[in-house]
Amino acid sequence: MAAIVSLATRTRSILPTMQADGPSGNWGRWGPDDERGALNLVTAEVVLEAARGLRTGKVYSLALPISRSRTPAVWDRPPPERFTRTAPQDQVEREGTHGHRVGSADDMLVLPSHAGTHIDALCHVFEGDSFYNGHPVDSFTTRRGAGKCSIVRTGTVATRAVLLDVPAASGLESLPAGHVITAAELDACCEREGLDVRPGDAVLIRTGWLEVLAGDASTPSFPQAGIGLEAASWLQAHDVCLVAADNSAVEVLPFEGGELAVHVQLIVHSGIALLEHAWLAELAADRCYVSLLVVGALPVVGATGSPVNPIAIG
Amino acid sequence: MAAIVSLATRTRSILPTMQADGPSGNWGRWGPDDERGALNLVTAEVVLEAARGLRTGKVYSLALPISRSRTPAVWDRPPPERFTRTAPQDQVEREGTHGHRVGSADDMLVLPSHAGTHIDALCHVFEGDSFYNGHPVDSFTTRRGAGKCSIVRTGTVATRAVLLDVPAASGLESLPAGHVITAAELDACCEREGLDVRPGDAVLIRTGWLEVLAGDASTPSFPQAGIGLEAASWLQAHDVCLVAADNSAVEVLPFEGGELAVHVQLIVHSGIALLEHAWLAELAADRCYVSLLVVGALPVVGATGSPVNPIAIG
Amino acid sequence: MAAIVSLATRTRSILPTMQADGPSGNWGRWGPDDERGALNLVTAEVVLEAARGLRTGKVYSLALPISRSRTPAVWDRPPPERFTRTAPQDQVEREGTHGHRVGSADDMLVLPSHAGTHIDALCHVFEGDSFYNGHPVDSFTTRRGAGKCSIVRTGTVATRAVLLDVPAASGLESLPAGHVITAAELDACCEREGLDVRPGDAVLIRTGWLEVLAGDASTPSFPQAGIGLEAASWLQAHDVCLVAADNSAVEVLPFEGGELAVHVQLIVHSGIALLEHAWLAELAADRCYVSLLVVGALPVVGATGSPVNPIAIG
Amino acid sequence: MAAIVSLATRTRSILPTMQADGPSGNWGRWGPDDERGALNLVTAEVVLEAARGLRTGKVYSLALPISRSRTPAVWDRPPPERFTRTAPQDQVEREGTHGHRVGSADDMLVLPSHAGTHIDALCHVFEGDSFYNGHPVDSFTTRRGAGKCSIVRTGTVATRAVLLDVPAASGLESLPAGHVITAAELDACCEREGLDVRPGDAVLIRTGWLEVLAGDASTPSFPQAGIGLEAASWLQAHDVCLVAADNSAVEVLPFEGGELAVHVQLIVHSGIALLEHAWLAELAADRCYVSLLVVGALPVVGATGSPVNPIAIG
Repeated sequence: MAAIVSLATRTRSILPTMQADGPSGNWGRWGPDDERGALNLVTAEVVLEAARGLRTGKVYSLALPISRSRTPAVWDRPPPERFTRTAPQDQVEREGTHGHRVGSADDMLVLPSHAGTHIDALCHVFEGDSFYNGHPVDSFTTRRGAGKCSIVRTGTVATRAVLLDVPAASGLESLPAGHVITAAELDACCEREGLDVRPGDAVLIRTGWLEVLAGDASTPSFPQAGIGLEAASWLQAHDVCLVAADNSAVEVLPFEGGELAVHVQLIVHSGIALLEHAWLAELAADRCYVSLLVVGALPVVGATGSPVNPIAIG
Repeated sequence: MAAIVSLATRTRSILPTMQADGPSGNWGRWGPDDERGALNLVTAEVVLEAARGLRTGKVYSLALPISRSRTPAVWDRPPPERFTRTAPQDQVEREGTHGHRVGSADDMLVLPSHAGTHIDALCHVFEGDSFYNGHPVDSFTTRRGAGKCSIVRTGTVATRAVLLDVPAASGLESLPAGHVITAAELDACCEREGLDVRPGDAVLIRTGWLEVLAGDASTPSFPQAGIGLEAASWLQAHDVCLVAADNSAVEVLPFEGGELAVHVQLIVHSGIALLEHAWLAELAADRCYVSLLVVGALPVVGATGSPVNPIAIG
Repeated sequence: MAAIVSLATRTRSILPTMQADGPSGNWGRWGPDDERGALNLVTAEVVLEAARGLRTGKVYSLALPISRSRTPAVWDRPPPERFTRTAPQDQVEREGTHGHRVGSADDMLVLPSHAGTHIDALCHVFEGDSFYNGHPVDSFTTRRGAGKCSIVRTGTVATRAVLLDVPAASGLESLPAGHVITAAELDACCEREGLDVRPGDAVLIRTGWLEVLAGDASTPSFPQAGIGLEAASWLQAHDVCLVAADNSAVEVLPFEGGELAVHVQLIVHSGIALLEHAWLAELAADRCYVSLLVVGALPVVGATGSPVNPIAIG
Repeated sequence: MAAIVSLATRTRSILPTMQADGPSGNWGRWGPDDERGALNLVTAEVVLEAARGLRTGKVYSLALPISRSRTPAVWDRPPPERFTRTAPQDQVEREGTHGHRVGSADDMLVLPSHAGTHIDALCHVFEGDSFYNGHPVDSFTTRRGAGKCSIVRTGTVATRAVLLDVPAASGLESLPAGHVITAAELDACCEREGLDVRPGDAVLIRTGWLEVLAGDASTPSFPQAGIGLEAASWLQAHDVCLVAADNSAVEVLPFEGGELAVHVQLIVHSGIALLEHAWLAELAADRCYVSLLVVGALPVVGATGSPVNPIAIG
């Protein structure tokens, strides 16, 4: 793959469709200018089928509350902060329709794009000189942010989602710290839950880590269970559009097989967005294994990701 | 209901118990502790029916891009800003799986909670000493923000949405600045579009203003077309759960009938959330009058609202 | 004093010049509209004499470096942050005079006004309904900040400063945690150092705490040595204009005699600004007990304080 | 110079002491590791002499108030913002020494490092691959900011300052927009004011522009009067340590002789810090041509500059 990638980065051209070690990436699959990646797999038919297949109509928020104390502290990122801009007490002079004073309150939000429950844009990770699809790293500047593959391109998602409850398939409440989730474990989840992963699906992988953290704030953020390269290949082979997990990196910590190995394989090679710190406890408790997932990331021009409140409808 | 409302208000303060012009507000309707307001009207059946009724599967983002230059400048709010925290160029030393350097980029977002496309929490507006349902204004402090009715309570929305294209019903591309949308105009939209507004619906009101602004950045933000008190009563009477519009305040500017009159009537009296600066041009162009609307606001603890990327599925 | 203060706050008038328990506060001393407090004591003569009395010309910065990791974490304040806005790498296309590319870099600072080395404005603390000099608490709103006694009024200081090295006078390197510095200890410092405290002086009180913290980042921030009410009265009696210390509150932690007792006595009653987290190690090492102190706080309109880099010239 | 600089950048070595076209820069003058630049010229003797020569003891703040509306809007920088973090109204439960409630207020500051009255660190500008003294541009990363020549190195200044009132020397109130200040004009100022510029001096150059802007907020920020390359050489030849002006760039806008030409010559070649948007009106009105200037920039680790409140003592 090294040679192939270096060829691709040299020529800003496309990647062959097969490699020795498994399914190839998606460079060029949707044209040389594509910035949307595997979300191209989500056709209107996929969406319609997901919507029409709903069974309960129950609405789940997969987001953690956003506050300094409730956001997992990882990677040395600043915590999210909220500051009041206008308080009700400021407004004593404005009289409304009914003879009472009326007024409003508002606030300012200072948010890392990758803290709490968030989605990675395809420009979040690079390899060599390239983002996904060979878009050059130089398209990113500090001042403007991402010129290619920003969150504006991948921030709107609606598709069928399948929850793979990995610890449940092994009779556990949560996976051991540092456990590398394998392809066989993903297959076991599908079998236990009676479902198939289809092209265009979002896959929600439960490790149980966020629930452990919620129960004990002193839980270390390293190591963490997550997927390794083999499971990443499984997800690529199933042509999924997005992978979410209830941990900090989707992939196992420490990384298996090199720095950001799964991020590089899924985001850079295949244009598959990752969504981290997803709160999957309620879906799992309800055994709601298939849902309609809707993610509306903030379309911040140039941004590499966004905090999100992903919504799953059962 | 009148008794409940007067009970709720007697101990904290005021509010007339009934109004001549139609249904009273919703204080007490879902119990004295309710902070969710009219979103209580969105039952699982409403959601299921909305999902199963989809016709095209086309996915629409109703959000404006977020950047200093593309966010309407109203109310003297600071503009949204994005700053790079880590740039790809920072990382030259980390080697990945394939022998290439790998790395990541991320950013910081500084966002007013009520700029661009955003949703108002029920604590955004108050009357006298009360927020919606009689929750006391003193539950809000500058330091912690809202103790009641914060965006955490109303930030997760999935329901049927109807688009009322007001200018189209009058053969216009956009409404004149300052035009007060009436109940009759809303009825005319329903008739023209062949639909009814049902309990639990979100109503998307198109004025055309954002499209005018998009075409000419020098378009003044004052006055603006929007709904007045009569149309607000119409929406209350139809038991809608949320009102969105493609303008800055849903209500007409200047206010009709007093400071923040429609905000007070819908948010404070009835617990109906407002969503502003919704981009409705594409829904209107497609004549997609009924959709499944999903809004995932950021659940910032204590916040009065949130920027959002509302997603409508046709 | 309670009766006197309540009288003062009722009438927004002035305070008598003497109280049973010692020197009174300074309300009314410089007129009913004064917002500058004890800095009024710094006459041009005081400044000239301080400048002409310099002995070494050595310049000391009394500020801690500003970064998340090097700012003492107290009071749950957010840490200071710096973000790059433009990096040199962004600018590859601009050619300068000499045929080379040229460019610039800049950043954004997100700073609590009271973290690290900082000065308190006279609006930082209130008692009853009043700030210093009876300015009403209602002059402060969340939206605009301080309408009276903001940092704009007291942010420019140049005067003679005396360093009182309290642990040195007791043969210690630093004071024990929670030690209450007494008037007798301040007198002992003056005697040991051969100096008098004069009207208009700034007093720099060394406890040694910051040096202990610099040597061991795990040093708890509570309790801390600092002055109590007796020493505060001593400082009032000496008509000082500002009190700085190398701890987090100038006053002892836990407070002696009630919530924020010394802050209230010095800031609210007497209009004496406090400056916290001053780095006094180098002055002390050089036995530079008298200096010209210059503090240029950021004149942020409405702010309650400012991070500062106080400069002492020996 | 081009050849010399490229040699220097290739070898990260030092600069010869003379060039064909005038006084050389200061690379290597204070050793290969120096990050302090011309501030090395400010010896203790310079400071002592400046302090002892004071005549009035009057204290001047050279800073503009910091607020969104009062900060000149140039270079598309975000405006400075202040947000209240804790308001007095939040604190109703804490009782102090005298039986009254007591409490505090504080705020958050969001400040561009180069807006309003500010000082440039020596890493603010680069040429080729180098900052001042050949420090490599790669020592700067977006994540950490400046590794060399940050504001921490040059943020503490105390020295003799001379005010050169350029328009006054020509009988004007302010210079015409775009006027290039020449060496002859600086000489004329010295002669009119009866002073010499000495090694280690800070030079305050008045153009009158900020006063024009203060009188008419619609004054364009482009073009502006300022110094050109000849005046920059004059300042280098006089071995000054810092140049301040009451305009946006010290140098004339549009640049004379290429992008950032004077910035490059003074900052990169000679290590002379620039201070912009200095408020010189009061010094000029008082004809206070010689003062002790003290600048305490915020020592933000990695920052390229800092807002400042420079203080001049007459």
